[in-house]
Amino acid sequence: MSDNKQAIRIGIVGHGNLGRGVEAAIARNSDMQIAGIYTRRDPAQLKPITAGAAVHPMDALASHKNQIDVLILCGGSKDDLPRQSPELAARFSLVDSFDTHARIPEHFAAVDAAAQAGKTTALISAGWDPGVFSINRVMGEVLLPDGATYTFWGKGLSQGHSDAIRRVPGVAGGVQYTIPVPEAVDKVRSGVRPALTTREKHCRECFVVLAAGADAEAVRQTIVGMPHYFDEYDTTVHFISAEELAREHGAMPHGGFVIRSGNTSQANKQVIEYRLQLESNPEFTSSVLVAYARAVHRMQQAGQFGCKTVFDVAPGLLSPKSAAELRAELL
Amino acid sequence: MSDNKQAIRIGIVGHGNLGRGVEAAIARNSDMQIAGIYTRRDPAQLKPITAGAAVHPMDALASHKNQIDVLILCGGSKDDLPRQSPELAARFSLVDSFDTHARIPEHFAAVDAAAQAGKTTALISAGWDPGVFSINRVMGEVLLPDGATYTFWGKGLSQGHSDAIRRVPGVAGGVQYTIPVPEAVDKVRSGVRPALTTREKHCRECFVVLAAGADAEAVRQTIVGMPHYFDEYDTTVHFISAEELAREHGAMPHGGFVIRSGNTSQANKQVIEYRLQLESNPEFTSSVLVAYARAVHRMQQAGQFGCKTVFDVAPGLLSPKSAAELRAELL
Repeated sequence: MSDNKQAIRIGIVGHGNLGRGVEAAIARNSDMQIAGIYTRRDPAQLKPITAGAAVHPMDALASHKNQIDVLILCGGSKDDLPRQSPELAARFSLVDSFDTHARIPEHFAAVDAAAQAGKTTALISAGWDPGVFSINRVMGEVLLPDGATYTFWGKGLSQGHSDAIRRVPGVAGGVQYTIPVPEAVDKVRSGVRPALTTREKHCRECFVVLAAGADAEAVRQTIVGMPHYFDEYDTTVHFISAEELAREHGAMPHGGFVIRSGNTSQANKQVIEYRLQLESNPEFTSSVLVAYARAVHRMQQAGQFGCKTVFDVAPGLLSPKSAAELRAELL
Repeated sequence: MSDNKQAIRIGIVGHGNLGRGVEAAIARNSDMQIAGIYTRRDPAQLKPITAGAAVHPMDALASHKNQIDVLILCGGSKDDLPRQSPELAARFSLVDSFDTHARIPEHFAAVDAAAQAGKTTALISAGWDPGVFSINRVMGEVLLPDGATYTFWGKGLSQGHSDAIRRVPGVAGGVQYTIPVPEAVDKVRSGVRPALTTREKHCRECFVVLAAGADAEAVRQTIVGMPHYFDEYDTTVHFISAEELAREHGAMPHGGFVIRSGNTSQANKQVIEYRLQLESNPEFTSSVLVAYARAVHRMQQAGQFGCKTVFDVAPGLLSPKSAAELRAELL
């Protein structure tokens, strides 16, 4: 950060995996600082990883407006963000990671109304998908209009599918990994444009701890036949001990590919591939949120109010470097 | 294209490989049309690939201002663009592919002065490197500030190195391929951050046709020892016939990788990879130029005058789809 700039003051709303990841990301961005961490839990019970970071109850936010440049919302897309983002956008610029793809238009409309009225800038659906994967879906279409886009996820731990298997009677614990089918990835990368079924693109692997007395085969059948979650996939279920689950499956790796395959002429195929290999899904998502908080602050200062998405943000706005530095060093 | 929009009228300046690629790209973007092709050659000798495309002498441009929304400059970075881009930016919005990295700040300044004065929008250095690779270098730094960026080029035909070997006495023809060293790519992908020398990152492979009576070993020695071009690389020289050169080495494939490897915490490594596999380098570059012409037209209409680069363009501006369509379909 240049000496003549003030650090951007970030308020962190929520302190689960994402909130802790935001702390870690701010520690790696010298032009940012934590203004405060806001929680619905008892603030005294919360242990920030940043020395000296102040923890406040959620309702203190109302009186802290002048101490905060941008809020980063670290709650869930199901229960927290549909309510929090519009409510807080009325008075704060913010970034969220709303990831229910089908409900994005509705979430956008609610947040936009609040942000336009409050003259704030609120960027929704940042992260990697939605987020940087979405950018690569747009860029793929734009650079190769005569083509097809393929998104593959994994290998990675899926929170939603892990939750689903833990709800099965007879299951004491478990995790689920989503795995792209290597033959499908290879075919797409080769530049042909295959039509792929759900089953041909991904398979699912479950590691399950049985409850005492549960029937393994019955549990397996319930999992592999579960509508929407598993029935359209080839699913493998491994039964393991609680010790092995804790020892081998505590991390949250993820990643995937966005591949655009297209022709620029009848003769010439072109393939664009964007790939993430993440050892920690929440920490990477948090790092994306923090970068977009920088852009949001600049857009708010430039009078660009309302709801925004990653599609509205020029790459240079995300960097702490000046436009001249970027041109000289990275173009 | 929606019915109520007028097609963007593109003037193509120059008709080599890039100019023909721009024609092919416009044929794949239904919201664009060719206003005219401008050449320093005899217009009657030039054969457009687009039925009905008008070909004009370069000096007709002066009187065609009202028929053109954006010029796409298809000349070379050494002799054409340093003169043409500032001169034409005084009266036209335009896109160029200026790719002499070290001279970008100077080119930017000259074009910016002309475009600010003329109230035009002129985007320089579009293509893939500089261009979409540059975007991925910025995004890599921004998303993983504690990390290292690696750019690999190839496997691909290098025009500059092919020209260099063709200037060697005793060489009747030849091409040069730049090849990333697989061990280096694998090491970078694994998430360690190796320090790599020039020789460790890329090797060079030449296919050379000897002139009658030339000494093969002398030619080989001259090529592999050539300062800057070859002396810092492991270079292999194959001698082939003129027939084999024409038959096997007429295409212009290229591509490469931008890999960012970094940590979001002490425990967790993350790797981002952007990869291009191009069967035609000039056609892909042209496709990028055409997409950025759409953004330039919109920025000019919005009063965003002056010189721009890919760092100044939000992804959504590049797409013919509306912001609402992009959010609903691709976020």
